[in-house]
Parts: sequence; structure tokens; C-alpha cells
Amino acid sequence: MSKIDITLGIDIGGTNTVFGFIDKTGNIVAEESIPTHSSEEAEMLFGRLHIKIEEMLKGLPENYNFVGIGVGAPNANYYKGTVEQPPNLNWGVVNIVEILKKYFDVPAAITNDANAAAIGEMKFGAAKGMKDFIVITLGTGLGSGIVADGDLIYGADGFAGEVGHVNVFIDGRQCGCGKKGCLETYASASGIRRTVFELLCNSIAPSSLRDLSFNQMTSKSIYEAAIKGDEIALKAFDYTGKILGLKLADSVAHTSPEAIILFGGLANAGDLITVPVKRYMEENLLPIFKNKVKIMLSGLPQGNTAILGASALIWNELDKIKKR
Amino acid sequence: MSKIDITLGIDIGGTNTVFGFIDKTGNIVAEESIPTHSSEEAEMLFGRLHIKIEEMLKGLPENYNFVGIGVGAPNANYYKGTVEQPPNLNWGVVNIVEILKKYFDVPAAITNDANAAAIGEMKFGAAKGMKDFIVITLGTGLGSGIVADGDLIYGADGFAGEVGHVNVFIDGRQCGCGKKGCLETYASASGIRRTVFELLCNSIAPSSLRDLSFNQMTSKSIYEAAIKGDEIALKAFDYTGKILGLKLADSVAHTSPEAIILFGGLANAGDLITVPVKRYMEENLLPIFKNKVKIMLSGLPQGNTAILGASALIWNELDKIKKR
Repeated sequence: MSKIDITLGIDIGGTNTVFGFIDKTGNIVAEESIPTHSSEEAEMLFGRLHIKIEEMLKGLPENYNFVGIGVGAPNANYYKGTVEQPPNLNWGVVNIVEILKKYFDVPAAITNDANAAAIGEMKFGAAKGMKDFIVITLGTGLGSGIVADGDLIYGADGFAGEVGHVNVFIDGRQCGCGKKGCLETYASASGIRRTVFELLCNSIAPSSLRDLSFNQMTSKSIYEAAIKGDEIALKAFDYTGKILGLKLADSVAHTSPEAIILFGGLANAGDLITVPVKRYMEENLLPIFKNKVKIMLSGLPQGNTAILGASALIWNELDKIKKR
Repeated sequence: MSKIDITLGIDIGGTNTVFGFIDKTGNIVAEESIPTHSSEEAEMLFGRLHIKIEEMLKGLPENYNFVGIGVGAPNANYYKGTVEQPPNLNWGVVNIVEILKKYFDVPAAITNDANAAAIGEMKFGAAKGMKDFIVITLGTGLGSGIVADGDLIYGADGFAGEVGHVNVFIDGRQCGCGKKGCLETYASASGIRRTVFELLCNSIAPSSLRDLSFNQMTSKSIYEAAIKGDEIALKAFDYTGKILGLKLADSVAHTSPEAIILFGGLANAGDLITVPVKRYMEENLLPIFKNKVKIMLSGLPQGNTAILGASALIWNELDKIKKR
């Protein structure tokens, strides 16, 4: 019986840690989730994970061959194997790759969620066959993974790809990072909500969004208003696309990608976001880049994107080892 | 007698074409220059170059071994070997690498001036031993070469690294590229002159620069006024550094370089430009990038930088061939 290689993808979130075994074509062979318990130390989480993973492995048919572990986590440093001061976890600096080595005798690698998403798109999603592309994750914030010539750009310190914190306006909106005017304060689920509040202030147009408090409003409520034709909601999507398109033109000037792939909650709005992003990006491109760069939606199946990305990370590392 | 490998570096400018033989350590063995004759076809220039180069080769001691040709030229496409619609030459689209193959039986490669400068810094200059850095050329315009993990980023089409055309202000200064608010309209020899004129308009401070017309004023005259303490000139350098620092913080967010190297005319102003660039860049960096990124001046010898860069390009290609 021929063996089928599988890797383990682990996605560490503030609330839950999801993990699953995935084969080389992106099929999820088994998948589970445990609570992260954010106040616990990292060692405790990995102790609990180890027990669950060994159980899962025992339950798998014998022809599966476990060959590597990929991890997606906030503030992950690819070079060091560490997670450093993650915003929602009480961990400090902890070397995840070394902890994994104590339990499992296979190669392991770690990177942040947006970088994992980028490798996921390259291996299993919309960027198959591409060597130069950018993935933009539009969640509560804006994350990015930049691939050039088939490799993720990690930079000198392992932290490259923070397009969410490029400057849009000097002294613009206050950002959680401590700066002002960052892209993610405009282009993200929280950014579009801020834009709605600016529009509700500046305009007198009636809108169903006038019935929601800041804390009640989500990007989903803005989307639902927009598809019903709500003027404020439609303007908010257009403005979000305008700012994102303008700044993606700057990203194109840096790395000249074949495509930019939008991923995550706000990307689910489809044309409402991709159409203005494309239009305003084109308006701001240097002539040599015009009509070349595709704006695409994620090609990963909904729901399992995070573990597919984490698994793709280690598949990619295993490919590199083979090439040497 | 052991052989010493040398490559030919060619820099094609609108007025002159400079070329020279350079060894692996960056020593220039021989160097010459001929007029480009911008109205001629490219074939004519390379016909004339061929004769000169064969003469030079005959004059060299026998222990030199000619192994490759690197070319720096405007609007060069590394992937295709072409120069496409160069602004100051009457060439259209022409395949330089194929023309060179007719005359010489060695590998050849071409890229634009700023990319050649970046590889030059990596091989022979300030970026020796670095794998992640950005070179910014501050001439009439602003060019850039971005190196990630030891390789220049060329992008999907070969034209990556156009940081001079990222947006600073929506509806800002008109740029030669057709857009508005591009970085090079603020941070370049022509950009600082525009800034001086804005300051002369908005302020009533006396300044020796009030005696120069727009066409008379150069970045050198602004520099000379600044070192004499001229308030307008000093403010112009500070503002240029502010805008460049702000936008370099965005570049750091993309590729997280170890250093940013300033190159070309305006970089000769030294501290007058590097001090404000560093200060404003730091102010605008995401906390994880603070106090990590060096602002440096070019480490290439003055005068021969262009042919050193072109030669470094082909040395780098030859290294890649060896690694395969």
C-alpha cells in the first residue's frame, strides 16, 4: 500500500486553536479545535494539543505518513520560530518551533496568519501557478503576505508584509498600533465602520445604519444595508475601495505583482469591494503597470482557510528542503 | 599564469554610454566612454561599442578571462532583455541582450539603473553581506531597487521597484508620469527645487535662493545655501527628508529591510538629507520596526557607480548559474 504524506496545520487564535491533517493537494483528512485559554502559558496549550494530535494520528488509516507541522499565529517570527508579545495571548516571547520539536520528530515552521494565507493561496487557492502576488486579509485589521519570485518576503527580521500600517493621511485616524492614518483604520471591518460614522456625521441622507450604535454595527450590517441600496453603506464601500485601491497602487510600485488577492470578512462583500478597489487602483498606477494587475477573491474553501494556510507553509518548506 | 575573470559593465545614458571591464572584487581594469547619439538606432550604438570593446580586450594582459556582460539602461526589462520606449532615446522596443549575443559569446543581462545600483551596493558597496535592503537613487527623479533574501525583486513583469511613484498626497504635485502627488515630485533633485519655490512663496524670510530663477536653481545651489545657514534651504532639506522618511516607513512595512541606502546627486548632501530622513522614518514606523533600519549613503566609489552596478548585475547572474 503506497503511503500518502500529510502535514499538520495549526492556527492559533485568541479564542480557539484549530488544527488538522492535510495532504499535498489540500484535502483535509482530519480536523479539530480546542479552546486556546488565552491566560494560560503556551506550554500548557501545546501539552493539550499534543494529546489531541496523538489521538487523531491513531485514528487515521495506516497509509498516512506524517511529515511536518505548519503554524499560523499572531506576531509569529518565521526566522526564529517564535511568537513575540501576541496581542490577545498572555505569552510574552515563546519559541513555538522548539516546543513542537519536544513532542514531534518532524520539521516545523511558523508565520503570521496573513503570510500563511498567502502561501495557502499559492499552494491550494487563487494564486496557484503564480510567482508574484500579494494577499490582503481584511478582518478586524488589515494583514498582508507578499510573494516575490515564488517566495514569501520575510525581510531582515521576519516581520515583512505589514501593508495595514502604511500611511494614508498625515494625522489621519488613530490606529491601535500607536500611529495615525494607517491603512487598516480605513480598509478593514473596523475601518469601514469608522467610515460609516464619518458619513453619518457629514451627510443628512437617511440610512438604516442610523439605528445602530458603534458597538452594534458590523461590516455585515453595512453589507446588508448596501445590498438594499442604502446610500451611506454604498458610499462607505466606495470610499473603502478608494483608499485601498490608492494604497495597493503603491504596493504594485514596490513589487509589481501579477495579482492582489482579497481574503477575509470584508472580502465576502465581493463586487462591492473589488470593483472600487480595481477602479481606484488603476487610476493610481504608473502607466507601465496599468491593466496588468488582477484583483481577485480568495480561492481557498471558506472555513478551513487558516489550517490550509498553516499546512501550506510547511509543504512549502518541505519543497525547499527537497530542492537543496 | 592563473586567469582572472572579468565582466563588462555598460551604462547607457541619454548623452554618453560608459563601459568598462571589472573584476570580481570591483576593480575597474579598463574604462571608456562613447557618445550615445540618441537619435540613432540601438543597432548602430552597439556596432560602435563592439569595435571599441574588441580594441579594449586586445589591449588587456592575456591573463584576463572575459566571462559576461551587464547593462544598465532606462526602461530595461530584466526578464525579456529589452529596453522599452526609453524616454531619452529614439529606440522603441529593442532586445539588447540579443544584439549583444551576435557580437559576444558570453552571458548578458540588463536591468534599469536603480536596480543595477542596488546589485552594485550588494557586491561592491554599502550592502555587502546584506540580504534585505533598498537602494533609493535621488537624481532628477527617484529610482529604487529592492532586494529581498539576496535577490532583486523584479515582479511579474520585470518592472518592480518604482518607489518614486508611490502617492504622497491625493491631488499633490504634478508628476512627469502623468499622475499627481508622486514621491519623486517631493524627494529628488527636481523635487527639492519645487519645495524651495513653495517655501519662497509661503514665507517672507530672506534667502539667497530668491536671486535664482527656477531654471537656474539646482540641488547643488540649494545645498550650498543650506551649508551657509540659509533658512529656506534648510527648511527645504528638512521637508524633503520628512516626505521621504514618511514614505520609506511604508517601504519598510512592505519588505522590512536591514538598511536603506541613498544614492545619487541629492545623497551627496549627507547629513542634511540623512538626518531628517532617519528621524521622520522612525516617527512613522510600526513599533516592531523601530530602531532596526539603517539609513546609509552609497558605498560605491564616486564616478564609476553606473558601470560597477552593471558589472555587478552579471556577476550576480553568474553566481546564480553556478548555484544551480
